Formats: sequence, structure tokens, C-alpha cells
Amino acid sequence: MNTNSSNIMALAPNTSNKRETVCIFGTGDFGRALGHKMIQSGYPVVYGSRSTQISNLIPKDAEVLSHAEAAQKAAIIIIAIQRQHYNFLTPLAEILRGKVVVDISNNLKLNQYPESNAEYLAQLLPGAKVVKAFNTVSAWALQSGALDASRQVFVCGDDVEAKQMVMNIVRALGLTPLDQGSLLAAQGIENYPLQLFPMWKFPMFLSLGLTAFFFFYCLALDVIYTYVYEKNNFSFFIAITIPNRICPVMALILLALVYLPGVLAAIIQLYRGTKYRRFPDWLDKWMLCRKQLGLIALAFASLHAVFTLVSPMRSFVRWRTSKGIISQALNNKTEPLDTTNAWLSDSYLALGILGFFFFVLVGITSLPSVSNSVNWREFRFVQSKLGYLTLILCTAHTLVYGGKWFLSPSAYRWYLPNIYMLSLVVPCIVLVVKFVLVFPCIDKPLTQIRQGWERNPKYSE
Amino acid sequence: MNTNSSNIMALAPNTSNKRETVCIFGTGDFGRALGHKMIQSGYPVVYGSRSTQISNLIPKDAEVLSHAEAAQKAAIIIIAIQRQHYNFLTPLAEILRGKVVVDISNNLKLNQYPESNAEYLAQLLPGAKVVKAFNTVSAWALQSGALDASRQVFVCGDDVEAKQMVMNIVRALGLTPLDQGSLLAAQGIENYPLQLFPMWKFPMFLSLGLTAFFFFYCLALDVIYTYVYEKNNFSFFIAITIPNRICPVMALILLALVYLPGVLAAIIQLYRGTKYRRFPDWLDKWMLCRKQLGLIALAFASLHAVFTLVSPMRSFVRWRTSKGIISQALNNKTEPLDTTNAWLSDSYLALGILGFFFFVLVGITSLPSVSNSVNWREFRFVQSKLGYLTLILCTAHTLVYGGKWFLSPSAYRWYLPNIYMLSLVVPCIVLVVKFVLVFPCIDKPLTQIRQGWERNPKYSE
Amino acid sequence: MNTNSSNIMALAPNTSNKRETVCIFGTGDFGRALGHKMIQSGYPVVYGSRSTQISNLIPKDAEVLSHAEAAQKAAIIIIAIQRQHYNFLTPLAEILRGKVVVDISNNLKLNQYPESNAEYLAQLLPGAKVVKAFNTVSAWALQSGALDASRQVFVCGDDVEAKQMVMNIVRALGLTPLDQGSLLAAQGIENYPLQLFPMWKFPMFLSLGLTAFFFFYCLALDVIYTYVYEKNNFSFFIAITIPNRICPVMALILLALVYLPGVLAAIIQLYRGTKYRRFPDWLDKWMLCRKQLGLIALAFASLHAVFTLVSPMRSFVRWRTSKGIISQALNNKTEPLDTTNAWLSDSYLALGILGFFFFVLVGITSLPSVSNSVNWREFRFVQSKLGYLTLILCTAHTLVYGGKWFLSPSAYRWYLPNIYMLSLVVPCIVLVVKFVLVFPCIDKPLTQIRQGWERNPKYSE
Repeated sequence: MNTNSSNIMALAPNTSNKRETVCIFGTGDFGRALGHKMIQSGYPVVYGSRSTQISNLIPKDAEVLSHAEAAQKAAIIIIAIQRQHYNFLTPLAEILRGKVVVDISNNLKLNQYPESNAEYLAQLLPGAKVVKAFNTVSAWALQSGALDASRQVFVCGDDVEAKQMVMNIVRALGLTPLDQGSLLAAQGIENYPLQLFPMWKFPMFLSLGLTAFFFFYCLALDVIYTYVYEKNNFSFFIAITIPNRICPVMALILLALVYLPGVLAAIIQLYRGTKYRRFPDWLDKWMLCRKQLGLIALAFASLHAVFTLVSPMRSFVRWRTSKGIISQALNNKTEPLDTTNAWLSDSYLALGILGFFFFVLVGITSLPSVSNSVNWREFRFVQSKLGYLTLILCTAHTLVYGGKWFLSPSAYRWYLPNIYMLSLVVPCIVLVVKFVLVFPCIDKPLTQIRQGWERNPKYSE
Repeated sequence: MNTNSSNIMALAPNTSNKRETVCIFGTGDFGRALGHKMIQSGYPVVYGSRSTQISNLIPKDAEVLSHAEAAQKAAIIIIAIQRQHYNFLTPLAEILRGKVVVDISNNLKLNQYPESNAEYLAQLLPGAKVVKAFNTVSAWALQSGALDASRQVFVCGDDVEAKQMVMNIVRALGLTPLDQGSLLAAQGIENYPLQLFPMWKFPMFLSLGLTAFFFFYCLALDVIYTYVYEKNNFSFFIAITIPNRICPVMALILLALVYLPGVLAAIIQLYRGTKYRRFPDWLDKWMLCRKQLGLIALAFASLHAVFTLVSPMRSFVRWRTSKGIISQALNNKTEPLDTTNAWLSDSYLALGILGFFFFVLVGITSLPSVSNSVNWREFRFVQSKLGYLTLILCTAHTLVYGGKWFLSPSAYRWYLPNIYMLSLVVPCIVLVVKFVLVFPCIDKPLTQIRQGWERNPKYSE
Repeated sequence: MNTNSSNIMALAPNTSNKRETVCIFGTGDFGRALGHKMIQSGYPVVYGSRSTQISNLIPKDAEVLSHAEAAQKAAIIIIAIQRQHYNFLTPLAEILRGKVVVDISNNLKLNQYPESNAEYLAQLLPGAKVVKAFNTVSAWALQSGALDASRQVFVCGDDVEAKQMVMNIVRALGLTPLDQGSLLAAQGIENYPLQLFPMWKFPMFLSLGLTAFFFFYCLALDVIYTYVYEKNNFSFFIAITIPNRICPVMALILLALVYLPGVLAAIIQLYRGTKYRRFPDWLDKWMLCRKQLGLIALAFASLHAVFTLVSPMRSFVRWRTSKGIISQALNNKTEPLDTTNAWLSDSYLALGILGFFFFVLVGITSLPSVSNSVNWREFRFVQSKLGYLTLILCTAHTLVYGGKWFLSPSAYRWYLPNIYMLSLVVPCIVLVVKFVLVFPCIDKPLTQIRQGWERNPKYSE
């Protein structure tokens, strides 16, 4: 047996154009899919299997041998079996010494084991060069070639050359390897495919909860109240009118919630006189999901825009318009143009359009490819300056729209305020506090604190 | 002659800040453009040329020598000549031994030669370290600096260090090198710049064909029929009314065609009892262009949205509205609000808006940078769950919109159904079959099959 | 003292899972933030500091030693002090020999010093392996973990292994290293975080200037003229009517300005008979900001679209519509449908919608991730073919919209043309010249020139 020489040969740059042999341990679904794809890409594949009985599912051009025999034929061994069965590799440790051993396993739960599967494998096989790869790709995708989604394969490992060899295979299969550094990254890589939008969970639940609350609030005030007191059946308001009341309210509140933690953080820092103490946990978490909150706000704002734009097409609106015109015609008179009204109507529309425009602009810069192509200064300019401009415009839009009703008693059905009044609470607080923070006498110490200055520095010996 | 030592020197990490000399064979357009750019970036450039007569087009600071002399001056030789003339390099093989030889050539047709130009070059110069690079950049772009488009330069080669040296030059020119692995990738890299949206061809032709068919169908029913039987000249329908009938129909059909192959694949797998037999070729190709079909459907849906939103601004619609109101006013009566109608009108608008909203959401996740930042589970969730939700909402939108006309004989001009009825055929089939497939008694065996289970496994010895 | 052996140990691939010790010189804000983050990621950190007095701001788990002692403990030394104080490193040159020294400094101005800080450091410490990194990340971002923006860390350096070590640290901190090649790239990397949308400056100022001009032009003609001569107070036109006149005009002019330099360049090349002479400087700069001009044009076009779509909701428009209908009703007559008018109205709307659709399509392909996934041929197809189609459609939209008023004297208030007439000047010139350039007798020599042919070639001996 001449394991060493074969390893050296394989690790040398393959100057000939022949692909090197790859060994796959395990003839399960993923092992077969990977083998198929590798044979298609020109790699000789040899399977290591317990049984000599060969399923016809194994690619025809692949050899099937015992584990030990298969391992000796190749410099790269891909372990396509589950972590629970890794023990059987212990007797093969000597044969695998110096070889590149690729861990492709996934777990069923986040952080299922104390250490990552790849690190566990490295402990079992101290002499092998363990590389983590391929766990983010599904067998189905490999087989069907339907790699519309991410073609990225995260690769990590302690041995640079072993990693290079695996990355070459990844590329040959038409995928994009992403070097994630040393084997310590394996835990993160194994957790990655198990996630389902983890950062979106809190913002989504918050939005759903608020939306449900506002829906029933509106239902009570707009449909039930009207039905009970005015005997009008406006149940069809559920389809468009009520959603178009909820959407702008949600958009404005969520947008304000994006900027509230920053304002809170500034107050905390001013109060403590230092930036070197951690924020409370809830504030940290809140700050980390600001992008998601903002994007959900943008979604609500977009829905509001479209719901508003379709209104002239609604049967109800057309009926209301005709009724108004006909009553004027029947009374034989034309109302003159009310300039104040024209000013109000035009300016709340214009404010809304501009607010939405800047909101979309800020949204576009949060696309990964765009935010990667701007530097920190530019990103902060867009997210902070343009973001506050958006908040100001949207708050002004709501104020101008509903201003005249604030003092009108008919707007308070069942002594409850209309929801656009509720929606103004958070944004107004944020804007007022931010306005105060911008004053030089407060902005200067805050800037100093953020640059590392401390009000009460303490030194230990 | 001391070729070896100069190579060794050049391959060592250049600890001094001096750029290494680069030699370019060929004084054609691309050779000159590349030389210009390299000199700008601080590389000493030496040209290898047949003639001693020097064109003033060659950058002033470059030296022009015979091929052999030029090659000896540099560790990197860029071959800026066409493949047909590669033969002249054979006598230089000894001088080029151990040097990095960069193939930048392109062909005129896809797969013009059996092997890639870079592999052919490597055969001619067995001792040289051949690297493929720069073929995806145009001379015009290099010269004008107008590199708005892709700055990506695909690099491949068997020697890792040679590749690193070339990638350093690529970076120094302000471009982004992308390591594509070994020289086997050269064929793909050479084909890349010749493509013109290959995946879009079939979806585009399909859409154009269907659009043309529906256009003439609508022209006949809406313009010609009206002109012949009702003596109305509605030729202006060609500008907006007919496009706004075709767009939603196309969007719905194409969206259904995105999900039809998945449903067909499931039926085939259930019938065969295994996933290990290839699908028919047409199904494979269909599945690979689903993303493109979906994006074209989204384009049609967007056009439909805008065409619908402008309708209140249309001269014809304004005239029709005034006519209705005036006739009510002249008859001295006001029609009461029809609640059923209000419900129908509001709900088909709301369904359309929500369907479009989710459609755009799915479209955004197919942006490369977004789909790269989600994992498989998230991608499948968006594309499959949200995609089907979109299809359901859009089908419901169409059903509610046109429902009342299904049984009305006036909707069947020339005994032909209206096109929105045609548009419902495919989506309804897809949704019904998908609904059946979701039943546990059918979903369970399907899931098993997709995890590698076989109804009739066969084993060879 | 055994500096060498420690270096060798550290530069060897770390086969054990322990992170290597990192030394940070300087206990300022960024040094502390980086140290915190590194300790969180599992790196032992040792600070090198002048004073033995230790601030409690320094992470608890970090050791604080003198510079010389600290440097000996680690193979990587991060210099978190300002360039002005680099001199103090000179006496440490011997200890730092062979070590990886990371320069993370930034300047206050673009190109503040003749050479980059990293290159200056490399001159001071001739034996050290200087790597530039981390300067694009802010201390605040590192500390708060709010890395929504670019996670990209540009890394450059002359020693490949030193660079790899630094890139591994970058990855371990949850950031994405981007290899930028040799230390010559440091100047660019140091300038990068100081930029604030440099390419956008000229297009933004141009747009602001033109917008201001057109605003006062419209204000004079639409508000002041009406007030003076017709005694109508249309001041509320400032909110929507005038912006919706300026936006389409700006969009059309800026879109034409995107294609004007290409046309000028073609004329210059035809006149000179060669492509090998540089264009005038202003033309070069203009060509480089075409993308930005186009995107601003798209922003104006989007605003125009939304401003137009909200018009049926405007108080003024509703009043005008009712007035028209009521006057018809009172006169007891219904105007018949004006087919010509319907054609005009529908076709300018349809042209505008199609123009906007293609404009958005071209805009989407300029997203970095999309333009990176198409090749040059595809990019030119979209930007040139679809771009000109957009320009033709938008110009036609404007012509059809305003055509009937060209010859009407009432359109010339104060003998000044309406602004949509002004807006047609540049696009019409571009389209006419482009039309001439497409003729074969002109296109053929131009293509030859662009492929490197010269009318009057000159050869030097």
C-alpha cells in the first residue's frame, strides 16, 4: 500500500487535463446525485459501500468497492453518510491519513450537537484534511440541474490546498465556491441551510399583530358603526377601503420604528456618558432588524400607493362621484373652485409621492448588490439622511391629509380616534426627539461619546 | 540565455513595488488596447512583433522587439493573435517553457473548434503555464474606460501561481478576476461572450407568438366585429384596450406555464415510481427556463397594471363616464349604490393588487444578488409557496372579474369565447392537479420518491 | 528572543482549531472596537501601548503590554494608530521583521499624502509583510454589529500568505474579504471610504440647475401669467401641476444627454479617421457619467408616471371634470365620441407606458448584480438597442402629446414656447444624427475605425 505517494501526486497541480478520481462514501440519495453530476463533469467516481450488491441507481460509470479499497483509489473522499454513522470511519483513519475528506452533512436542527459535524469528523480522523462543503446544495437541485437559486457553495477547512482542490470540483460542477476560512466556520455553514428568514421573524409577527389589531379597529369604526347607527351596509369596505387605511398606518409606524432605536441609543449614550457599555438586549436585537422593519414598511407603502391609485376605478367611488355631479346638475348650479381645498389636496398628494419616491430609493440601496457597491459614508448618507427625509415627508403627508379632522367631533366615533391619528404618535415622537438631538449643545457631546470620549473615565492599574 | 532564473524571479512574490514586465505578442487592436491600459497601470510593456516597422498606434512607452527577444524579457506573455496563427509559436516553445502564457482569444461561433483555444495553445507549448483570461472584455471598453458593464474577467488555468499572477494584473487594470478553476473551463469561458441571452430565446419566441395570436383574436372580436355589426369605429382600441386585454392573459398563462412542468414532473415520477430516470428532454428544457418565463409574465403583469391605472385618463373612458352621468341627470334620477357590484369590483381589484404584490416579491428574489443571499429552503419557500399564492390570487382575480359573463350569450361573439376565458384554461388545470397532489395519500409517496425511494428497485450483482 | 520561530509557527496552516494571537498597537476607539470583536470571535488579543495605566475601556480578556513585548507574542500586528505617529515604529523594525503588519488607517482627505499610508509603513518596516485592511469598516459598525451596509473589507498586500492570514481574520469577524492585489492598490483603498458618490456630483448639479430653471420658467408662464392676465389664482399648481411638467421634460432631456456623447464621439472619430486619439476631456468625463445621468432620468420619469396617475384624485381635476359634465347636462346635450381625440389620447398614453417600461428594463440591467451576470454583447444590446428604443418611444410620446399645440398661438405666452417644446430639442437632434449614422455609407467606415483601421496611418521607423 502506497498511500503517501498517491496523495502527493494528487495534491500537485494537475498539469494534465485529466480530472482526478473522487471517492464517495455512501450510496444514499445525495451521494448518488453528487456522483452523477461529477461523472457528467468528467470526474472518475468510485463509491465506497458496505454491500457488494450494487443498486442500479448508482451511476453506471462508477465503480463500487469496499470503503478501504475505494479510499485508496482517490485523494479526495466525500463522506455522504449521516453523522450518527461516522464511527465506522475510525478503522479507516490510517488509510485516510493525509487525504482530503469532505464533510457534506447537514443536521435536522440548529446547533444539534456541541461541535459541528466537520469538526467531529476531524477529531475522528486526526491525520485527514477535513473540508466542509456542498451541504448548502440539495440533491434534487444537483440532479435536475435546476440551480436557479443560489449556486454558492460554502467551503471551509484548515488546509489551504485541500480547500483549493474541493473548490476546483465545486467550480467544475457549475457552482460557485465561497471560501469561509478555517474549519471553525463549519458550525455556521451547517446551520445556514436550516434557517428560514431568521431576521424576518420578529418584524413579521409584529406586523401581523399590528395589522390584525388595526383591521378589527377599522372594522368596528367603519363597517359596524356605520351599519348600527347609519343603517348603511359598507361591508365591501373590507376589500379595499380598510386595507388602504391599514397599509399607510402600518407603513408609517414601522418606518418610525426603524428610527426609534437609534434615537433611544443616543439618549442612553448621553445619559451614561460613554459608548463602552452594552445596550440592553432588546435594543440590540431591535437595531439588528431595522432593515427588515424598513422593507416591510416599504411593502405596506407600495400597497397603499396601488390601493390609492385604483380608487377611481372602484364601483363605489364612481357611484359617489356621479351622485355628487348629478346633485349639482339637478340643483342647476356649479360649485366654484375651492383654492384652499385644491392646495390641501395637491400638497398631501405631492408629499406622499415624494415620500414614497425617497422610500423606494432607500429600499433600492438595501439590495445586497447595491449596498455592496457603496462605502460606509454613502450608505449612512442614504439610510440616515434620506431615511429621515422619508419619515418627515410621510408624516407631513399624513398630517396634511387628516389635519382638518383633528378638531372635528364627527371623527371620533365611539369616542375613539381615527387610526391615522394613532399612526402619528410614534413618528412625531421620533421626529421631535431627533430634532432635539440635532441641536449643537446636545449633538456635540454625543459625537464626542461616539468617537470614544468618556464623561467618567475609569482606569484600573 | 537565462530563461529559468528570470522565471523564478518573476514568480516569487514581488516584494518591491515595481510591476513586472509584461510581454504582448501581436500588435492588433486588442493587443494595443491592453498594452495602453497596462502602461497606464504602471506595467512595463514589451511587444513581440514580426515586423521591425513600428506603427505609431503602439503605445509610445512600449518597446517593440522580435517575438523571441520580447518573450525573454518577461515572465508573462499575452498572446493577442488569432488561433489560426498559433502555429508560429511552435519554434518559440523552448523560450516559453515555464513562462505564463495568457490566451485571450475569442472565436466567431459557439464551439467552433473541438477543443478550446487555450487548450490548443497548451498542447502547442507543453512547457508553458497557459492561463485563459481577458476574452470577456472588449478592446473598446478597455480603451474608453467605459466599463459600466461587467468588470468581471474569467480566469482559468492549471497552474495556481500563474493564475494568481494574471489575476493580479486583472485587478491592477481595475477589473475583477473570477477564478474559474482548471483549463477545462476554457471552453465555457470562450463561449460566454458569444451568447445573446440563450435562456431567453424560447420564452421570448413563445411570448411573441402567443401575443400575436391574441392580438388578432382581439382585433377580430373587439374592432372588426363591432365595426361590421354595430357600425362603431373602435380602431383606437388597438392602442390601449387591446394591449390591456392581452397583457393580463399573457401574464396568467405564462405564470401557469412556470408551474406546469413541476406538476408534470410529479406525475411522471409518481407513474414511474422512481426519480432516477431522466425526464423527457422537452421537460428538462422547460424546467430550465421557468425563471425566464416567470419574469416575462411579470413584465406583462406590470404593463397590465399601468395600462389599467391610466384608464381614467383616457379620452374614451372620460367620454363614456360623462355620457352615463349626463343620461342619469337628464332622466332626473340617481341610481342607488349596488352593494353586490361594489363587492365584485372591490374584490377583483384587491385580488389583482395582492397577486401583483406577491408577483413582484417573487420577482425581486430572482435578482442574482438577492437569490445569492438566501439559502435553498428560503428560496424554495419564496418561489414555490409565494409563487403558488400568486397564481391562486391572479386566477381568482380573473375569475371574479369575468365570472358574470361566462353564462351571458353576448360574451360569445362569432361563437368564440372572450380571451380571458381562454386564459383560465392552463392556470385552472395547474391548480386542480396541484390540489390533488397535495393530498396526503399522494403527497407521501411522492416525497418518498423524491428522497430516493423506489417502487421497483432493481439490483445488479 | 526567538522571533523567527514564532513567525514560522504562525504562518503554518493552523491545523489545530485554536485561533492565533493577534496584537493590536494602539488603544484608541478603533483599536478597542476591533479587539472586542476579535475576542468575541475567539482570538486571543494583546494590546501594545505606551502607558502601563490601563483604561477599563480595553476589553477585559485582552492583555496590555509594551509595544515590543506585545509584538513578540503574535504573528499579526494591527497598527491602530494614525499615520503621523508611525515614526515610533522605526525602533521596532527588527522585532516586526517577518511579521504580518496590518495597516488599517484612513486619511481625512483624498490623496492627502504622496504615497498611501500602507506603502509608507512598508518603507518604515522593510522586513515586515504589510497588509492593508479594515479601513472601510467603521468602529461604530464593528461594535454595534449593525453591519447592514457593505460587509466587504478590501485587503491588499504583496505577500500572499500574509494576505491569506488577514483574510481569515476578516472572515472570522463575519465580514467578506475582497483581495485587491498588491500593495499598490492601497492608495485606492484608502481613498474609497472618503468618497461621497463622486460619479453622481456632475449629474446631480446639472439636474438641480435645469430643474430650478424649468421651475421658474413654468412658474412665470403657468402661475404668474394666469394671475396677471386672467386673474386666476392657480398658485396650487406649484404642488403637482408644475412638478409634473418639469419631471417629463427633465427625464427626456437627461435621457437624450445619455446618448449625445456617443453620437459626438462617432462624429469625432469619423472626422479624425482614427480611434487612436484621445477624445477631449469633457467628452471623456461625460461618457463616464452616462449611467448616472440615465438613472436620474429614470427617477424623473418615475415621478412623472406617479404624478400623472394621481391626477384623477386631485381636487382641481375633479372640479374641472364635474364642471364639464354639468355644463353639458345643463345644455341638455351629449357630445359624441371624438375618434381622432381618442386615438391621440390613447396613443400618447400607450407610447408613454411602453417608453417607461423599456426605461425601467434598462434601469434594472444597470443594477450591479444584473450587469455582472450578462456578457458584453448582452449589455450592449440592452443599453444601446433598448436604450434607443426608449428614447424613440419617449420622444414620440412627447410629440403626440403636444403636437397639436405647436402651431397654436395661444401656446406661446409672452412669446415663449411651452417647456415640452424646449424638451424636444436635444432628443430630436440625437435621433436625427443617429439616424444618419446608421446609413451603411457612414456606418461602414465607422465600424472599420472602431476595429482599429486608420484613414491616414503613420509609421515611425
